Amino acid sequence: MSTTLNATQPWRQRLAEWIESPRSQFLIMALIIVNAVILGLETAPSVMQHWGGLLSRLDQLILGIFVIEISLRFIAHDWRLLRDPWGLFDTLVIVIALIPASGPLAVLRALRVLRVLRLISIVPSMKIVVQSLLSALPGMGSIMALMGLVFYVAAVIATQLFGEQFPDWFGTLGASLYTLFQVMTLESWSMGIVRPVMEAYPLAWLYFVPFILIATFMMLNLFIAVIVDAIQNQRERVAASKAASQGKTVEPTEPHRSSLSGANQELLLEEVRQMRAELRSLRDQLGER
Amino acid sequence: MSTTLNATQPWRQRLAEWIESPRSQFLIMALIIVNAVILGLETAPSVMQHWGGLLSRLDQLILGIFVIEISLRFIAHDWRLLRDPWGLFDTLVIVIALIPASGPLAVLRALRVLRVLRLISIVPSMKIVVQSLLSALPGMGSIMALMGLVFYVAAVIATQLFGEQFPDWFGTLGASLYTLFQVMTLESWSMGIVRPVMEAYPLAWLYFVPFILIATFMMLNLFIAVIVDAIQNQRERVAASKAASQGKTVEPTEPHRSSLSGANQELLLEEVRQMRAELRSLRDQLGER
Amino acid sequence: MSTTLNATQPWRQRLAEWIESPRSQFLIMALIIVNAVILGLETAPSVMQHWGGLLSRLDQLILGIFVIEISLRFIAHDWRLLRDPWGLFDTLVIVIALIPASGPLAVLRALRVLRVLRLISIVPSMKIVVQSLLSALPGMGSIMALMGLVFYVAAVIATQLFGEQFPDWFGTLGASLYTLFQVMTLESWSMGIVRPVMEAYPLAWLYFVPFILIATFMMLNLFIAVIVDAIQNQRERVAASKAASQGKTVEPTEPHRSSLSGANQELLLEEVRQMRAELRSLRDQLGER
Amino acid sequence: MSTTLNATQPWRQRLAEWIESPRSQFLIMALIIVNAVILGLETAPSVMQHWGGLLSRLDQLILGIFVIEISLRFIAHDWRLLRDPWGLFDTLVIVIALIPASGPLAVLRALRVLRVLRLISIVPSMKIVVQSLLSALPGMGSIMALMGLVFYVAAVIATQLFGEQFPDWFGTLGASLYTLFQVMTLESWSMGIVRPVMEAYPLAWLYFVPFILIATFMMLNLFIAVIVDAIQNQRERVAASKAASQGKTVEPTEPHRSSLSGANQELLLEEVRQMRAELRSLRDQLGER
Repeated sequence: MSTTLNATQPWRQRLAEWIESPRSQFLIMALIIVNAVILGLETAPSVMQHWGGLLSRLDQLILGIFVIEISLRFIAHDWRLLRDPWGLFDTLVIVIALIPASGPLAVLRALRVLRVLRLISIVPSMKIVVQSLLSALPGMGSIMALMGLVFYVAAVIATQLFGEQFPDWFGTLGASLYTLFQVMTLESWSMGIVRPVMEAYPLAWLYFVPFILIATFMMLNLFIAVIVDAIQNQRERVAASKAASQGKTVEPTEPHRSSLSGANQELLLEEVRQMRAELRSLRDQLGER
Repeated sequence: MSTTLNATQPWRQRLAEWIESPRSQFLIMALIIVNAVILGLETAPSVMQHWGGLLSRLDQLILGIFVIEISLRFIAHDWRLLRDPWGLFDTLVIVIALIPASGPLAVLRALRVLRVLRLISIVPSMKIVVQSLLSALPGMGSIMALMGLVFYVAAVIATQLFGEQFPDWFGTLGASLYTLFQVMTLESWSMGIVRPVMEAYPLAWLYFVPFILIATFMMLNLFIAVIVDAIQNQRERVAASKAASQGKTVEPTEPHRSSLSGANQELLLEEVRQMRAELRSLRDQLGER
Repeated sequence: MSTTLNATQPWRQRLAEWIESPRSQFLIMALIIVNAVILGLETAPSVMQHWGGLLSRLDQLILGIFVIEISLRFIAHDWRLLRDPWGLFDTLVIVIALIPASGPLAVLRALRVLRVLRLISIVPSMKIVVQSLLSALPGMGSIMALMGLVFYVAAVIATQLFGEQFPDWFGTLGASLYTLFQVMTLESWSMGIVRPVMEAYPLAWLYFVPFILIATFMMLNLFIAVIVDAIQNQRERVAASKAASQGKTVEPTEPHRSSLSGANQELLLEEVRQMRAELRSLRDQLGER
Repeated sequence: MSTTLNATQPWRQRLAEWIESPRSQFLIMALIIVNAVILGLETAPSVMQHWGGLLSRLDQLILGIFVIEISLRFIAHDWRLLRDPWGLFDTLVIVIALIPASGPLAVLRALRVLRVLRLISIVPSMKIVVQSLLSALPGMGSIMALMGLVFYVAAVIATQLFGEQFPDWFGTLGASLYTLFQVMTLESWSMGIVRPVMEAYPLAWLYFVPFILIATFMMLNLFIAVIVDAIQNQRERVAASKAASQGKTVEPTEPHRSSLSGANQELLLEEVRQMRAELRSLRDQLGER
């Protein structure tokens, strides 16, 4: 949440504090869970036949409370709420529920359950996990761009080479991209796709085998890099919080620690050297007498 | 096992010591292995035809010994045995074998072989592996809750979107959860599930491709985090036992070690500074004379 | 690019500087992206019907600019351009586009899109990712040779054992290698390949199960070793650039740091010991008087 | 190779040195590669028709040379050759080639190509990779025993539960083990196996989903633990060889280094404390006068 509240309107700050108090948050969390159960029950036709009316009204009621809550948060925080990614997310899932889901927008009815994902922004430990995974993504920009480039180039080549004979799989750029994604996940790549293609083009393996090696390797690389990053971030956070609770600062990285420790030793060495000089001068003093 | 034995009844302690002596444990281990072979042989109809009676009687005999053993352990440890997870596990697998397996409980007959898993609680090295894997699970609570949430939300959406047209795969919440688990393992996800679905709903890939990316990524993250944790735990245990055998203590973590070493240096620096002060006062003393 | 330019011809250096200036590079990058879009559009028959002529002419125009650019780079750098792997790559993709793609070379028409991969050599962050992945490959020579050996031996055995009965899968050495690659990726290995083979040779699992364990393990090993290497390289690069910006050198490896720190302590200990000896001689001196 | 040669027979040592000289090893390596090519060519019927006689004779010739070589090594090293695992391996692959491959032993004909794996024992870098992977296996004993136990228990349960209705997949203990291995690799586990089983037993997922989670997790754990171990071993070897070439010793592990450094500091602290005591006694001495 935005921490730079409008200081000239203290009632806004009090409102924000009230909404973000543990009691209010707990109430919202309970309502989200109840709502999740309701939305789950609504998928069962037999339940809907008997309790459909009640469930719909309960769902409407909870949605109403959510609308009031998000409105209060807008009053408290102003439009700055949308600058916070979690605030934006909370607003979006409420808006989806309010759009009348009819005609071409009937799909939005199914997306009402996304509301349940608000649980992530309310439970701190889940929020931390999601943030630590998302925070690793920006550093992966280059490798994701590279994968996008490789997929695009591979899809253009596949469409031109195999599109005419296998329109279902490689007829358009989109079909090729989907099929290549399937091939990357190794699902039925050989028996389902490449062996039939090889009956028309016996050398098709020259295209697919390198593609599989490159694509699976880059995907694994991307996943592992993000995971290693997230694990490391979490450890540093744990170490930092441990150190903070013991009332001292942590040195974030190895080289930094090394240099500090080295500085300490330099200090000690200097101290000892001066002491020795002092001792020598003392002896000279005694010798003179 | 519980180490807080009832000291007022020394015969109980002697009984516990006798049951947990290497000789008794070795006998139980041998019986478990023999029992495993018997239960394996019982799956072969040809063997059952000739030796069925003998095998059944042997199985009954070994089960009898196990019942006596667990009874003695209950006498020795009281109901506290059930507080130890391994004691609870041992008790459960014996109870399963004693319930008459007939009618709707016929499935319990097949579960008798779970008895063989008692080997884990008897062989120390296997017990350590299982404990180190299980000990990593609590720290994974957040990410497992997150996966549960994602699966629930995805299953509700899938049931509402595809349930009517594909009742076998997405007809109920349970069917959707199973199908999504299959999709996460990448088994036949495209040729078996998504391509047929895309014939009815051409944009279904907009739902499935993100789901696959998120679900496989979170699963891999969970697995790798647990494995890294378990490997690390094991290393620290090995390092600790090495240090213990050399008669010294180990500092468990890097930051901790660093601070200890730093404390040592602080001490040294202080000592040297006081010494220098003393030396200065000595010179002053000499100078005065 | 070659940095040892011909100093006797300063106009060549000025030409190279002009080509490699941010402005020229940005123009080339923009042209590559436009070209990528054009080549993507050319895969859609409906677009080609209406705009085919325009797209072809635009493609020709951009290709012409690329030919001029590469010619200028050859003039600036001489044939040394081909010694730089990226220069060689840029030259190759242009040459592919210039060969008339007709008759047996029609496949080259599809390879024109490889031109888009020049983006990698122009965008520095993508170039670094590719280089760090490629730089890990040479260290993997042994394990790749080992995998090649295992595949070759396994393919010869499979061809001799199963070739006669299953000519499609194991008829020739090439077919066996392809099928074994499919088995290694675990795609339909059992339901598609091994179960049918086991109907003719019931013991075939004795060949396939060990092959799967060995091949998937070696592949995972290879991938993880390369990824760990690449992540480590990147971290060292980041640490080095951080240290460089703070105007100090980094100690690359742990042992090195340790030995330095140890040397410092040795020095200190020696200093203190000599000081103590001096102190003793001082006391003796005083005692004598 | 055994380094404890019979010193009373110097000609044996000279023979061993001659066999193991780079020149002889290079000749053997060349012959192995030629042999690999021959055995590969023999799988092609068209080649066999024209050159079959020549290839067979060449193969016989090379085998003869290998027999002479292994005989000389037996003369040089005595039966101790079989104590070295690589010597045992080399002997075995030659013996396989000498057994007449006819009747039930026809399969041995296909195994002649295992001879090519001798390349591993001749090329040092490949030998190191194999040894470092194998050396990690003993430490994995517990987890492999655990996997064996889990598979055995799961196979007995599956045979008893599903054996009657699905004899092809779960009819015998062996069939169950194979099917469970297939399920662990995730190949067609759902569409191929579990969905059909669930039509007879709707709750079968209660057995298969936990099995998949446990089995894939333990397998991944095993593979990653071995790979991490092998990478670490290799790094320590590289660090050790680097340090050796710089003429200093390395401290193998972190805790060891830490304790050394700590010991050094303890020494220093003690030295300084005694010095301070000496200084105090000196002052007292001066004060008394």
